[in-house]
Amino acid sequence: MKEIKVGMLGLGTVGSGVVKLLRENLPVIRGKLGAELVLKRIAVRDTKKDRGVSVEPGVLTDDFESVIADPDISVIVELIGGYSPAREYVLAAIGHGKHVVTANKALLACHGEDIYAAAASRGVEVRYEAAVGGGIPVLSAIKGNMAANRFRTVLGILNGTCNYILTRMTRERADFAQALKNAQALGYAEADPTFDIEGVDTAHKLCLLLTLCFGTRVDFKDIHTEGIGTVSALDIEFAARFGYRIKLLATGKLDGDRVEARVQPTMVPMDDPLAGIDGVCNAIRVSGDYAGSVMFSGRGAGMEPTASAVVGDIMAIARNILVGVGRRSAPMGFMDEEIVRLPVKPIGETVSKYYLRFTVPDHPGMLAKIAGALGENGVSIRSVIQTARKGGAPVPVVIVTHEARQMDVSRALDTIETLKITSENVRLLRIEDDLEVVSIRDVPTGDGSELPRSPL
Amino acid sequence: MKEIKVGMLGLGTVGSGVVKLLRENLPVIRGKLGAELVLKRIAVRDTKKDRGVSVEPGVLTDDFESVIADPDISVIVELIGGYSPAREYVLAAIGHGKHVVTANKALLACHGEDIYAAAASRGVEVRYEAAVGGGIPVLSAIKGNMAANRFRTVLGILNGTCNYILTRMTRERADFAQALKNAQALGYAEADPTFDIEGVDTAHKLCLLLTLCFGTRVDFKDIHTEGIGTVSALDIEFAARFGYRIKLLATGKLDGDRVEARVQPTMVPMDDPLAGIDGVCNAIRVSGDYAGSVMFSGRGAGMEPTASAVVGDIMAIARNILVGVGRRSAPMGFMDEEIVRLPVKPIGETVSKYYLRFTVPDHPGMLAKIAGALGENGVSIRSVIQTARKGGAPVPVVIVTHEARQMDVSRALDTIETLKITSENVRLLRIEDDLEVVSIRDVPTGDGSELPRSPL
Repeated sequence: MKEIKVGMLGLGTVGSGVVKLLRENLPVIRGKLGAELVLKRIAVRDTKKDRGVSVEPGVLTDDFESVIADPDISVIVELIGGYSPAREYVLAAIGHGKHVVTANKALLACHGEDIYAAAASRGVEVRYEAAVGGGIPVLSAIKGNMAANRFRTVLGILNGTCNYILTRMTRERADFAQALKNAQALGYAEADPTFDIEGVDTAHKLCLLLTLCFGTRVDFKDIHTEGIGTVSALDIEFAARFGYRIKLLATGKLDGDRVEARVQPTMVPMDDPLAGIDGVCNAIRVSGDYAGSVMFSGRGAGMEPTASAVVGDIMAIARNILVGVGRRSAPMGFMDEEIVRLPVKPIGETVSKYYLRFTVPDHPGMLAKIAGALGENGVSIRSVIQTARKGGAPVPVVIVTHEARQMDVSRALDTIETLKITSENVRLLRIEDDLEVVSIRDVPTGDGSELPRSPL
Repeated sequence: MKEIKVGMLGLGTVGSGVVKLLRENLPVIRGKLGAELVLKRIAVRDTKKDRGVSVEPGVLTDDFESVIADPDISVIVELIGGYSPAREYVLAAIGHGKHVVTANKALLACHGEDIYAAAASRGVEVRYEAAVGGGIPVLSAIKGNMAANRFRTVLGILNGTCNYILTRMTRERADFAQALKNAQALGYAEADPTFDIEGVDTAHKLCLLLTLCFGTRVDFKDIHTEGIGTVSALDIEFAARFGYRIKLLATGKLDGDRVEARVQPTMVPMDDPLAGIDGVCNAIRVSGDYAGSVMFSGRGAGMEPTASAVVGDIMAIARNILVGVGRRSAPMGFMDEEIVRLPVKPIGETVSKYYLRFTVPDHPGMLAKIAGALGENGVSIRSVIQTARKGGAPVPVVIVTHEARQMDVSRALDTIETLKITSENVRLLRIEDDLEVVSIRDVPTGDGSELPRSPL
């Protein structure tokens, strides 16, 4: 039986999963490819370290170059993560004419351009399904069967750590610090969780989705990124009263010749399926002009799901090799020369509904002042909650606006700031009412008109 | 620019969508393929009929053979539906060395074997993403990036008509006949809805999913199939009281060397994402040993979503042609010679929880008799609702069982029948608690134990 030889760089959690998967599911892989995937060499920094997975003698080496240059090997799997030396290794592998599979979203978000250009000139494939959504095969779907669509929006819950923390905060009315500690104790958050909770990891993933969906490169630094550290239990509670859940949402939209690209804690309607994605699960919803809204959900991280995506990519490359083909598709779905660089719409110009929570002294006239400042700046109010007063202590005034430009909301908040009536910083959250989804979920009544929406 | 010439058989709703899509999204398709898809000929029975879509002069013909045999054409798209002459046309196209794209689940479920064998011997591809789930690219995902998994279960809401009817029944407490009439008036159900509401269409689709997931052929007639005609508004109401929604569910499971394969109205827990799939939407959830549970949802039918899937398939074939490859993968994911024929587990041996609704006279001791008969047959009771009595009229007694074999439940119901205490036929519904999904959605509490489930 024909063999396809694979070299791997790194043997951490995902790498161990790949070793296990290739071993345990050998008959399945063989039955589908009619060939064998052989993990010939694995390069690691320390060959002595116990990794909880056994490999044949002679497979492990600390000589990365020898794996990358091995003429027997046709596919290099990069699983060391980070920018460097991952970038140099990947470019070297491409230089040697190897196909590359990687799970490294940070690398591709920041250095994808060089890597894709090198792969094009050598006629090899670069595949990276595991970089977004773990075992959820969403990138392959966008590049593959959905390729005929013009995409309009992509929304994603892309970071399991953040989603786990927000889910616990929601279910237990816990505050952020406590939920983070719990997540760390259970291994769902790193000791240094910065990349996750500040939204950086989500923004890396969004960066890849934007190119796949819209055929545009977006500089990672142009993605407006906010983390979940400022989400409070109180906001989660008010969100529920208005009929929403708070999720760290990656949002990409094509708007004429510009793209919207942001990562923010966002309120989504409870009857939107994204609101039901809990714990460490991930979900991605893309909206194409022909396919409509398609949602993918599942385990977004972990040894096994990520290994599933990595080996799926190796199999796709193996199918090419078996029919004698070097490269069958470009890494970003679009031909490399078709990729453009659309400007990112400044965050101030983006439009959505907003949730605003003010903390004001319990005096008459506070709401009137706030409402006045909003109105003067063209922000109209859809709904207000002012809670029962408790003898002079500051009280929350919570406002949900109609659609407004972010810059108008900001200006209104600046005005309110000058009034010196708020005793804490204003809390602001964006609301994402994905109207198309709500309408396809709604069922017309007898006369064809739509049923009333849930709360509000 | 290189051109790939396509011939189409049939120009109904889906065909018109394909014509529109190829025209409107020409730049997208070109930008991804670096080539053009040209719809060279379309064969229809009546070339004079107005189809609401314009085609260039000379494209339409009523000579099917000439399209199939056209040496310029490399891909034939079969969209006439039904068994014959679709089967003969598809085989003829393969005989001429053409690749085939079809949306015809009935054809593949019943004659797939011949078609795949012919395609293998001619080295051409047969693709059929549009046959299941409309624009949801689930078949490509199972065959593609998820290919390294051993699949354990596949669950699907696969028929938009049934799901629409059940959704209306649920939201409006409508009965089946009224909801069907509404669905027909809105174009969501055919004038003759038999294939849909009796579950036949769902079973065809399940048949394809079983082969893709488990590598086994299953005779369509071996799939236990029940329709939605017997679902009553009362059962929907009781289901809600127990924390469930009723869906027409296609269920496939691998159980050792046998498969479970059934289509039945089924109760799914409200906190299972499948319960939230409403209206004409479809959803498919596959569970792989590495990827875990992955769910796909979106529009399961309609001109545009189906066209998206068809053109996605054409593009996949075009990518092969452009690199000089005839066939890159087998139609069922597994190599043809690897496909086995596992026996289907007799329905009597399948195990699940059950919902049973008895209608009994309002006399004391009725519940005791029913419970006795269930117990004698090894069926244990998890929960009971007996509604308030109203002066002697028959009352419903509703029981939810623990896991039980279907044959034991049947035997118990036979015993109860002989007691002559029920005044109407017993209503029975299977309950599908997909435990893995519930557990990945649940969030551990501080000590790592799981939160209590919703109702019951």
